[in-house]
Amino acid sequence: MKLTSHMIVLVTLALTCSANAWETLPTTAGPTAEPASQEMIELGKQLFFDPRLSLTGTVSCNTCHNLMEGGDDGRETSMGIHGRTGPRNAPTVWNSVFQGSQFWDGRAATLEEQAQGPIVAAPEMGMPDHNHALQRIAKIPGYQASFQSVFGSENALTLENAVNAIAAFERTLITPHSDFDRYLDGEEHAMNAQQIAGMGRFESVGCTECHDGPALNGWQPGDVESVFQEFPRSMDSGLVDRYQLAADLGRFAVTQAESDKHLFKVPTLRNILLTAPYFHHGRVSTIHEAIDVMAQTQLDTELSGAEIAEIAAFFAALDGRFPELPLPRLPSRAGESVIDEPEVLDE
Amino acid sequence: MKLTSHMIVLVTLALTCSANAWETLPTTAGPTAEPASQEMIELGKQLFFDPRLSLTGTVSCNTCHNLMEGGDDGRETSMGIHGRTGPRNAPTVWNSVFQGSQFWDGRAATLEEQAQGPIVAAPEMGMPDHNHALQRIAKIPGYQASFQSVFGSENALTLENAVNAIAAFERTLITPHSDFDRYLDGEEHAMNAQQIAGMGRFESVGCTECHDGPALNGWQPGDVESVFQEFPRSMDSGLVDRYQLAADLGRFAVTQAESDKHLFKVPTLRNILLTAPYFHHGRVSTIHEAIDVMAQTQLDTELSGAEIAEIAAFFAALDGRFPELPLPRLPSRAGESVIDEPEVLDE
Repeated sequence: MKLTSHMIVLVTLALTCSANAWETLPTTAGPTAEPASQEMIELGKQLFFDPRLSLTGTVSCNTCHNLMEGGDDGRETSMGIHGRTGPRNAPTVWNSVFQGSQFWDGRAATLEEQAQGPIVAAPEMGMPDHNHALQRIAKIPGYQASFQSVFGSENALTLENAVNAIAAFERTLITPHSDFDRYLDGEEHAMNAQQIAGMGRFESVGCTECHDGPALNGWQPGDVESVFQEFPRSMDSGLVDRYQLAADLGRFAVTQAESDKHLFKVPTLRNILLTAPYFHHGRVSTIHEAIDVMAQTQLDTELSGAEIAEIAAFFAALDGRFPELPLPRLPSRAGESVIDEPEVLDE
Repeated sequence: MKLTSHMIVLVTLALTCSANAWETLPTTAGPTAEPASQEMIELGKQLFFDPRLSLTGTVSCNTCHNLMEGGDDGRETSMGIHGRTGPRNAPTVWNSVFQGSQFWDGRAATLEEQAQGPIVAAPEMGMPDHNHALQRIAKIPGYQASFQSVFGSENALTLENAVNAIAAFERTLITPHSDFDRYLDGEEHAMNAQQIAGMGRFESVGCTECHDGPALNGWQPGDVESVFQEFPRSMDSGLVDRYQLAADLGRFAVTQAESDKHLFKVPTLRNILLTAPYFHHGRVSTIHEAIDVMAQTQLDTELSGAEIAEIAAFFAALDGRFPELPLPRLPSRAGESVIDEPEVLDE
């Protein structure tokens, strides 16, 4: 018997999706080999919020992954230095620890690896190379002292240590205790009737084939890889053209494997109402359109307006409780400019 | 007797500068006609941090007035949307309540008036007009609710209310209890010997002729106008050319009065070591150069390296204690994009 690509998808689904679609979000990232110290997390938080990591001193990690809102930037695609824009929509950094890989195409295996990317991406923080960023940070005595204190060596200010600190901070960015979590924990009034109906609809239509597990992204604790799915699965829908869904080849650009064409990481649905616009390219403005697109292109189902509204209501129950974060104090270089490089580079 | 402009400056100094150069920073902005509610301050804080007030959704008040550091952006001149830069260095927002007017040229009388400017300045937040910004904010139900709750009317989401809230928040941005304040309060070991010597040098050289009062900017509680001074006062110094000090006509652009040519507001020296680079154009990278320039061009005095170092050491005692600020949660438009306007406008 020859396996068709459609059959492979189904087999993959059977292997990767858990039996129980509904799971509460863990309240911590769980034990790691080397648990991070509070001091390391604080350093990572400073770096996360520090725009001096960008060539022009204007773009921090938080610019595109705004922790004051949905952990994204609310734009179709992000805007970095000099008003440059990239090709994809910024995924939320909230609960990103509950993913088996990072970026829409999973090209970074870990949060540490992910954190390296934007620093040197021309349309993001735009540093010509990582050394440039490290030399910038090294001008600031407070960072020198923190890196030495956290990592305990003379030459502690390295890219590896910097991204380790950023990732340690990101592992704390968890939003548990949503209405959905409290409902699963037995608080039956935590969700209203429409939301409970939407939860049932979400499962019966088939969304949980991929959007299951604690982050509703197919990931399970211990998974070292993310779940990838073809999107759009059906090219027949008129929505494919309307929203330009087929232009981006997704994971294919990473692996060059034919079978990875149009594969994207299944995104978490936690806090999904806070991260419009939607999909890898941000071309879908509303959650109602997004639900419609998913049902038609992925599940060959046309939902009524009422059914879409039910599922959207369920999504409101996925808004988590955000930890209170004190604004970090960023260390200064006393009485001396830090941003003193040419701002436009030959490319 | 005909008054020369130099004599007028001296008379002005005598009228505007207090007898006692040394004053501690107040810990609050003091009573105002209508004290702001905590709810209004919180709303102002949200608006201050919200990048959706800019056309591209990428630039907030905090972008150029970063409260995580010196209340500025560390750049020569600020960079707004699309990588555009303005003509002047961002003044610190910390302790800006202790000024009799806002902007380097004092063109805004109040914090409320100041807050209107950047929203519609092309090289800053770049909104085509204030209505555009208000319509953006009005899409967000949480803001609708907050404005109504704070300002108690049906049509509460107005520019006036928005800038009132922002200014109410800014009035809380005070950094008291510096080493200098504690020294003045009798803690004799709060400053070291070099700093005490620097404080004496700062006065004996003549810096306190302008940089006096609680914010070291000539301002006194109750003053309704800022103190303006000619800069550079002497055009003879080679430093004028080296640092291009004379190109900007300062307050003249506001008043068109000949006597206002090259007049600038005396800036606060509170937290001055955190706000390099220096002066209205940010072309002076270090505090040592800045002290040298001021002594030569304003006081006709050439200081030794040791004397400059003394004064710089004194400045370190002006770093205040920063209030701990929880990161605000910005209200979201559930499941719908907020930034959906064309990003490049005909100009």
